[in-house]
Amino acid sequence: MPKVPDQLRIRRIKENAVYDRESIYRILDEGLVCHVGFVDDGQPVVIPMLYARRDDLLLLHGAVASRLQKVLAAGARICVTITLLDGLVLARSAFNHSVNYRSVVAFGVANKIKGPQAKRAALDTLVDKLVPGRRADIRDNTRQELAATSILEFPLDEIVAKVRTGPPDDFDKDMKLPIWAGVLPVTQQFGEPVPDPALVGDSTVPDYIRKYRRSGGN
Amino acid sequence: MPKVPDQLRIRRIKENAVYDRESIYRILDEGLVCHVGFVDDGQPVVIPMLYARRDDLLLLHGAVASRLQKVLAAGARICVTITLLDGLVLARSAFNHSVNYRSVVAFGVANKIKGPQAKRAALDTLVDKLVPGRRADIRDNTRQELAATSILEFPLDEIVAKVRTGPPDDFDKDMKLPIWAGVLPVTQQFGEPVPDPALVGDSTVPDYIRKYRRSGGN
Repeated sequence: MPKVPDQLRIRRIKENAVYDRESIYRILDEGLVCHVGFVDDGQPVVIPMLYARRDDLLLLHGAVASRLQKVLAAGARICVTITLLDGLVLARSAFNHSVNYRSVVAFGVANKIKGPQAKRAALDTLVDKLVPGRRADIRDNTRQELAATSILEFPLDEIVAKVRTGPPDDFDKDMKLPIWAGVLPVTQQFGEPVPDPALVGDSTVPDYIRKYRRSGGN
Repeated sequence: MPKVPDQLRIRRIKENAVYDRESIYRILDEGLVCHVGFVDDGQPVVIPMLYARRDDLLLLHGAVASRLQKVLAAGARICVTITLLDGLVLARSAFNHSVNYRSVVAFGVANKIKGPQAKRAALDTLVDKLVPGRRADIRDNTRQELAATSILEFPLDEIVAKVRTGPPDDFDKDMKLPIWAGVLPVTQQFGEPVPDPALVGDSTVPDYIRKYRRSGGN
């Protein structure tokens, strides 16, 4: 993600800002964890949260620390950032080393979802977006659980994505150097499901878990 | 990462704060991308940056946007968060769904590294921590590149990690339900290296790239 000063940049730039929602939403729909930034008494705080997109908003779920509660109650703005790392870009100089990635940064105000019905819908959406098919397999939420559930709703208004793809962006003068250069792809993989040792009944792993994949295209 | 109210928690809690530096550094040494939070005119901003640990500090590298520059010049505090996602925790209820993860949150003040010698050392450390063995293969940095390089130094003083491991943490009353429950492991994988189409000379992928792995233990 290094910024390259214009005077040094001779070849193509592969790092682009993306503004169209369809492309941004594809990035959001592939990720699982976001980083939420807020300000607590002047101190910036960044915490990881699970998220899922529902139309033009994100549902955020996680340990809502008391200081984040305070920020939300005050209607203060937060920042939500999602980063997907796609590759290590190995150039011919240290300076031109980089990474291929897709990241989304969104600014706005988040609200706690209130009321059992809205909470139930949000929790079910979260579970089924994070693990499609899961909702149908598990038991229903209880009122006590819904009361204890804290999910935030974050409208996607101010939003931008940045994407870098492709081979290294070396300087022309370096292109003849006999140095291996290229990209080492990075992906998130899902392994063999590990059953809870306390499992009872049929231990067959459901298909939607065995074949689990993330993809912004689906 | 859901916070579970005490009155609902019956079984073991597997989410723990970690304070010893050795464990925290192992997490840091496995990650590649951190999320840096800062405050710009009251607005929290979170951006992804590459990082590497050098002893008790982090070297941060990335597009240092003008507003972050301003924050750093003012000596304002930032927050650096690293999250490694290890698994999707599939419980018998939506409420107890969670993720296995390791995250580090650090607070402090970052400084720009100044002077060609210090910058050269920082850039070389970054490259060789991100891709061990790479430094020896590439050409030397030029003075012009070092002048244009912006690397931050962030002392690891105020730091804490949080870790969740293990199977779902369902309620006792749910343990007899005939629902598949367990963990779907998540890992970061490195694929087949993709050579730069403009490669000249020997196209053999160096061993340190072909066998690239991340591990906080190494």
